[in-house]
Amino acid sequence: MTADRLPECGVPRFITLLDGPWATLIVRELLRGPHRFTELRDALPGISPHTLTSRLRLFERHGIVLRTAYSEIPPRVEYRLTPLGEGLRAVLDTMAAWALTVPDGEPAATA
Amino acid sequence: MTADRLPECGVPRFITLLDGPWATLIVRELLRGPHRFTELRDALPGISPHTLTSRLRLFERHGIVLRTAYSEIPPRVEYRLTPLGEGLRAVLDTMAAWALTVPDGEPAATA
Repeated sequence: MTADRLPECGVPRFITLLDGPWATLIVRELLRGPHRFTELRDALPGISPHTLTSRLRLFERHGIVLRTAYSEIPPRVEYRLTPLGEGLRAVLDTMAAWALTVPDGEPAATA
Repeated sequence: MTADRLPECGVPRFITLLDGPWATLIVRELLRGPHRFTELRDALPGISPHTLTSRLRLFERHGIVLRTAYSEIPPRVEYRLTPLGEGLRAVLDTMAAWALTVPDGEPAATA
C-alpha cells in the first residue's frame, strides 16, 4: 500500500487523521508552538516513542505538520503545524467548549 | 470506582467522553435520529456489541444520550441524543469541514 487515501466522508476522514487520543494531544501541544521530538515526548507522559513517531509521520504525510532538520551540532529536528494543521485549532476549541458543558457522571448505579 | 469524574481540561475531557473512533461514529448515527440498539449495530459494521453497549452507557451516564424502554411486546429500547448530545453536531461538523480540506497523502517514500 503506497497510496495513502483517506475516507471521503468528513467524519471518518477526520477519525483516520486524528487516530486515537494521542493524535489529538500531540496537536494540542503543537498548537502551543514548534516542538522537538523529545519535547513532545516529555509533554505527553505515557506516550511511546513508536506512537509519537507514527502519528508525526502521518501528520507530515498529509501536510498537517512540517518537520525541519537543522544542520547543527548536535542536529536539531523540529515539528510545527502547517497552516492546514493550524486549522485544527478551531476543531479542538469546539471539542473543548462542548466537553466543558458536560457534567461529571452520576455515580454508577451498580453494586 | 463509583464516581465518574472527567478530566477538567476541555480537550482531555472530550477525548474521555468520545473515546475511540466508534464513539464518534455512534454519535454521527444518533445525530440522524433515534435508533434502537440493533439499528445502531447494523449501521456500524464491525462494531462489537460490547463496545456499542459500553459507549452508550458512558453517554447515558453523562447525559449525552437518553435511553427509553417502551413496554411493548416485544419490548423496544431506543437511544436518542439529549440536547447536550445534540451539541456534538457542531463538533462533528467542524471535524468534517477541516478533514475535507486535507489532501490524500503523498505515496509513501519507502521501498
